[in-house]
Formats: sequence, structure tokens, C-alpha cells
Amino acid sequence: MSEIAELGEFGLIKRLTEGIELRNESSKKGVGDDCAVIAPTEGTVTLVTTDMLMEGVHFDLTYVPLHYLGYKAAAVNLSDIYAMNGTPRQMTVSLALSKRFSVEAVDQLYAGILRACEEYGVDVVGGDTTSSLTGLAVSITVLGEARPEDIVYRNGAKDTDLICVSGNLGAAYMGLQLLERENAVYKQQFEEARQTGNTHLMEELNNTQPDWAGHEYILQRQLRPEPRADIVKALAAAGIRPTSMMDISDGLSSELLHICTQSHVGCRIYEERIPLDYQTAAMAEELNMNVTTCALNGGEDYELLFTVPLSENDKVSQLEDVHVIGYITQEKLGKTLVCRDGTEMELKAQGWNPLKAE
Amino acid sequence: MSEIAELGEFGLIKRLTEGIELRNESSKKGVGDDCAVIAPTEGTVTLVTTDMLMEGVHFDLTYVPLHYLGYKAAAVNLSDIYAMNGTPRQMTVSLALSKRFSVEAVDQLYAGILRACEEYGVDVVGGDTTSSLTGLAVSITVLGEARPEDIVYRNGAKDTDLICVSGNLGAAYMGLQLLERENAVYKQQFEEARQTGNTHLMEELNNTQPDWAGHEYILQRQLRPEPRADIVKALAAAGIRPTSMMDISDGLSSELLHICTQSHVGCRIYEERIPLDYQTAAMAEELNMNVTTCALNGGEDYELLFTVPLSENDKVSQLEDVHVIGYITQEKLGKTLVCRDGTEMELKAQGWNPLKAE
Repeated sequence: MSEIAELGEFGLIKRLTEGIELRNESSKKGVGDDCAVIAPTEGTVTLVTTDMLMEGVHFDLTYVPLHYLGYKAAAVNLSDIYAMNGTPRQMTVSLALSKRFSVEAVDQLYAGILRACEEYGVDVVGGDTTSSLTGLAVSITVLGEARPEDIVYRNGAKDTDLICVSGNLGAAYMGLQLLERENAVYKQQFEEARQTGNTHLMEELNNTQPDWAGHEYILQRQLRPEPRADIVKALAAAGIRPTSMMDISDGLSSELLHICTQSHVGCRIYEERIPLDYQTAAMAEELNMNVTTCALNGGEDYELLFTVPLSENDKVSQLEDVHVIGYITQEKLGKTLVCRDGTEMELKAQGWNPLKAE
Repeated sequence: MSEIAELGEFGLIKRLTEGIELRNESSKKGVGDDCAVIAPTEGTVTLVTTDMLMEGVHFDLTYVPLHYLGYKAAAVNLSDIYAMNGTPRQMTVSLALSKRFSVEAVDQLYAGILRACEEYGVDVVGGDTTSSLTGLAVSITVLGEARPEDIVYRNGAKDTDLICVSGNLGAAYMGLQLLERENAVYKQQFEEARQTGNTHLMEELNNTQPDWAGHEYILQRQLRPEPRADIVKALAAAGIRPTSMMDISDGLSSELLHICTQSHVGCRIYEERIPLDYQTAAMAEELNMNVTTCALNGGEDYELLFTVPLSENDKVSQLEDVHVIGYITQEKLGKTLVCRDGTEMELKAQGWNPLKAE
């Protein structure tokens, strides 16, 4: 293992970025000067989004491998560009590293980021690398492009529009629950082994992975979310322009309420229509949790939530992996969840909120 | 004092950003959707730069007021845009806050950021606000614009070009030394008062500011650096296009070596030509430090370092606050500092490096 201090800031930046080749015509100058230079494609406007992930708040390195963390940190930003109906093009990556990180650890983190960039055709054009007194901080900014007429905001939903989601919901949250449970089990077993001086068992615990069989999908959803570029392409190919769209990072309820508030409309969604994966339901059952609550409030699925005019019903019904879960109403009719038994509840945001009191 | 947890993430974002009015024609959509939307000005390309500041590494809140910290965090990014000969237009601001920050404290930090934006005509169009287990982290990204033919990189310096710097050097570093000295004095006095149970003195120490008389300039240089928009404008007005340029964040030596390396040239600069302020020299004397070493390696002055063709000598000599400190040579002649006594030394980078071993 090599220490970052041996390389210094410029040495580390060189090591991380020197293999990077710019893929996009618009990326004129990448890492290596005071700024990156981007030549916007004619007829497009620029989309900008940024996210900061803090150790201990957004991720726990005891069970998140650094390569996955890098991939996810990039993916969640790409997801925001797709949520505007745009195409991501450039990324800047800022890392603050505490002393306990080796050069090899940073290599892994960066490799995950670059892997996501490769997958989605994005160029890393700049960033900052510095030290941190304590945890790891990752701040990523992504630039994308879209023709102005293609951009979809949160405020365009209209009465009678259909409410659609891609993929399925709650899986990432269930993956997190599983990881946290297994981590707690490991910690307890390790502590017991330590107290009884059983060094053999301590070593064994450190070298054994839990058996993830039957849970692979929810783990993957938590650790390696994929932004839904495919849905954006499918919508374009089908000639459907959503009236509003956003990605589901904090949970379906929270995001749908954002669309309703900004569009000045109400909504009516049906519990039975909310798409769930089998593994999500099984895990919720095992943990004695309500699977609908998880799907509504779990967050981190990075699926797309969007509305389309009622007249697009036929077209949208034929799209793979897109589900109509309800419709937009007049604002005065409120925001309603219709449960499986026919009862109605007001939709409330209980999504993840890092600054809210517990 | 109000707790951030009472507002939550969306409440805090709303509080911080709801008064923001977009100034630039190119800023089409600011805070409030998945992305900001920017319409690039016809005929320009986009410049992107980003910087992350970490508590305890880049700043010490025991002696840096939050308003100044915000201003500086913004200013250092704007400086990178000017260093490309561009104009800053948009900014995203990501904050990670630990529980000890009150809403009022965040207001102050943000007010400093917005003040710098107002001063330099920049729009805050997005960001992220989250919590941190430990210190404060501030990550800012700035977008700017320039006509492609106006952009100045680090790699264009040519043999016989004049090497110029704006303003004066070493002042910000001397300001830091002063702040750290006074902070150490305060801590020691407070600890002595605490040990002798002198609560009256403890209170008095907490309510007294050190006497900064005679040091105002170096303090201001450390706490509230100003990016040199005026120099970029003056160069344009004089019809001078630098062959290379960067801003001095890590120290003159370090930055000049970047230009030499990237331009494949050598340099020869003269100690007696390095511009110094009287307060910088006086403070160095008081602290028994070599003022030239401080000016060469101190960093954080955010002055501009640039090269111009020898034929521009007359024009550049007439620019206010611009100083010719030497000239570019062939690469094989090395990088030389000519001292006051005529001796010659090889220029070495000893600038601030947050990741380097002490």
C-alpha cells in the first residue's frame, strides 16, 4: 500500500487522470489548466447538476466497496441530467481524503467513477483533490446538453396527465436494510470473539462474506444504481415528450409532491400499481416492514418519475419497464394514495432527509 | 439561534436561495429542478472550474468569520475563470454542515458567497446541502464564458516573453501567520485563566479582539481575496493578449514552474522585481522570516501570473498594478531566480500542498 503523501496533490491528480481520453466533441480541454473548456453543441443548452456525498452520512465504508461508491457517486449525478431529458457530457470530481486512504484505495474509487463515465459516455474534465481531517467527501458536478425544446421540468404536469415510473421501487432501500443488518451481525460476532479472545474466529469473520444468495438484485440496486438513460431514449424513440419529470432519489412520495407543488396540481396514485420486485417484497416480509411504505419512501432507486398527456396512454403502455401508477388531478383534489383495500390516504413525504431531526 | 434540523434540507435550501434573482442572460433556470439550465452566449465556449474547501485543512473557524469564508470560497473559483481570460457567469454551491451550525451561521456563510457573486456578476444556479458528521465542507463549481480565440492556457509561453504578476505577493500568507499567532496567544492566555479559575479574564478574552492596527492590509488579503477581474479587463483594453496565464493560489514558484513545464520553456526572474507590500515586509521582519521566500511560496494571493510577448513591453509597462519580474528562456537554460546580490538559484516549488507529507 502506498501513502498519498508520497505523491502529493499534483502527483495524485496525474496518476488518477493521465489515462483519460476525451470522448465528446464538446470537451475541448480537460484536466490540467485553471479551467476545463467546453464548446457547447450548436442548438443545445447546458444542464448543470451537483451532488456531495459525505462519509458516515451517505455511505458507510465498512460495507460499501470503494469501486461501487465511485460508480454510484457518478451515477446519481448522471441521473439528474436524464431527469431533465438531457444527455450528460462532462464531469468534475472533487475528493477530500483522510490520511487512512491509500493510493490504491483512491485508485479504486476513481476507477468506479470512470467506469460509470465510460458506460454513459461522459468525460472527466476537472476536479479538485485535497485532504480531509476525518472522513471521505466526494463532490461531483455534471454538465449535460439538451435542445431547449426537449427539456422537461418539474412544473409541467397537467390535470388528467398519467403518472409513470420506470423500473421498480423500494429495492435500493431494502438492499440498504440488508447490508446494515449483516453489518450489525458481523460487528456483534466480532465483538464476542474479541471478548473471549477467539482470534481464530475473529480472522475467519474478517475473511468471510455473508451469503447474499437470493438478495443479489436488491444489493445491486443499493450499491450500483443505473441512471435510466434507456428510458429517456425509449421515450424519444416513441415520440413521447413527458410534461414533467424527475428522478427518484428521495422516494416516490417526496418526488411526486415536488412535481405537484411546482405544477400546482394534485395527484391520485394506486398502491396496487406501484411496481415492486420479488426480492424487495421478500426482504420486506423477512424484516417485517410494509413494502409499500418502503417503495413510497425508500429512495435511492434513481428510477424516473414522469407525467405524460392522457392521449399518450397507448404509446406509453407499450414501453418496456414503464408503469402507469395513477394520474394528475386538479390541485384542490389533493394528493391521494388509493390503497389495495380501496381506502384513501393523503400522500406525505417521508423520504430521506439528511438535515432533518430524527 | 435556530437549528437546521427544524428546517430540513428543502427548508434550508429555500431559505438560502429564495431571494436570488438571476442576472445573466445566459442563466435560464436556477435552483429548483434536477438541473440548472444555461444557454451559452453565441460565439463563446464554456469554462468550468471547481474547488473544495475542508474545515481544519483550508480554514479554521476559530478565527475566520463565516461571511469571509463564503466570500473567499467563491472568490478563489472566480479567480480560476479570470486566469483563463474568461468571464464567470454561474455558480453551484454545495455545503456539508455538522450539527453545531445554526441556521444563522449558514446564513452568514451564504451571504458571503452571494456577496462575491454580486460583486462579480455571477448567478448561483444550483447546489447541494447536506449534513456532515464532523467539519464543514464547501464545494463550489463556477461556469464562465470566453470567446475561443481569447482563452489563455498555461502552455503558450515562448522564449523571450516577459513574465508579469499583478498586485503584490506574500501578503495573504503573512496575514495567515498573524492570525495563527494571535490565535495561539489567545489560546494560551485563555488556558492560563481557566487553570487559575479567573472567569473574569476568560470572559474578557472572549470579548476582546486583538489590535490589528498596521496589519489591516495583510489580514484583508488573507480573509477576503479579490480575483483580478480588473487586470483581465485592463489587458483587453490595452489590446494585450497574454501568451500564458494562471492565478497564484499555491505560490509564485509553484505556478511559474507549471507554466514552464506545460510550455516547455525556462525562466529567469529577479528577486528585486517581486512586488511586495510594506505590511508584508514589516510582518516578515517581525516574525523573522525571509520575505522573498514568503512571496515565492506563500500562496493564496490570487494575483495573476502571465507572460506577454517582448514586443508588448511598452504597453504592459503602462498598466497599473502590473509588474514585469523577469522573462521566459529556452527550456535548457533552466528556471532561475536571480537574487538581490546577483547570485542565482534554481526555482523550486515549495507551495502549499494539502496532500504532501509534512
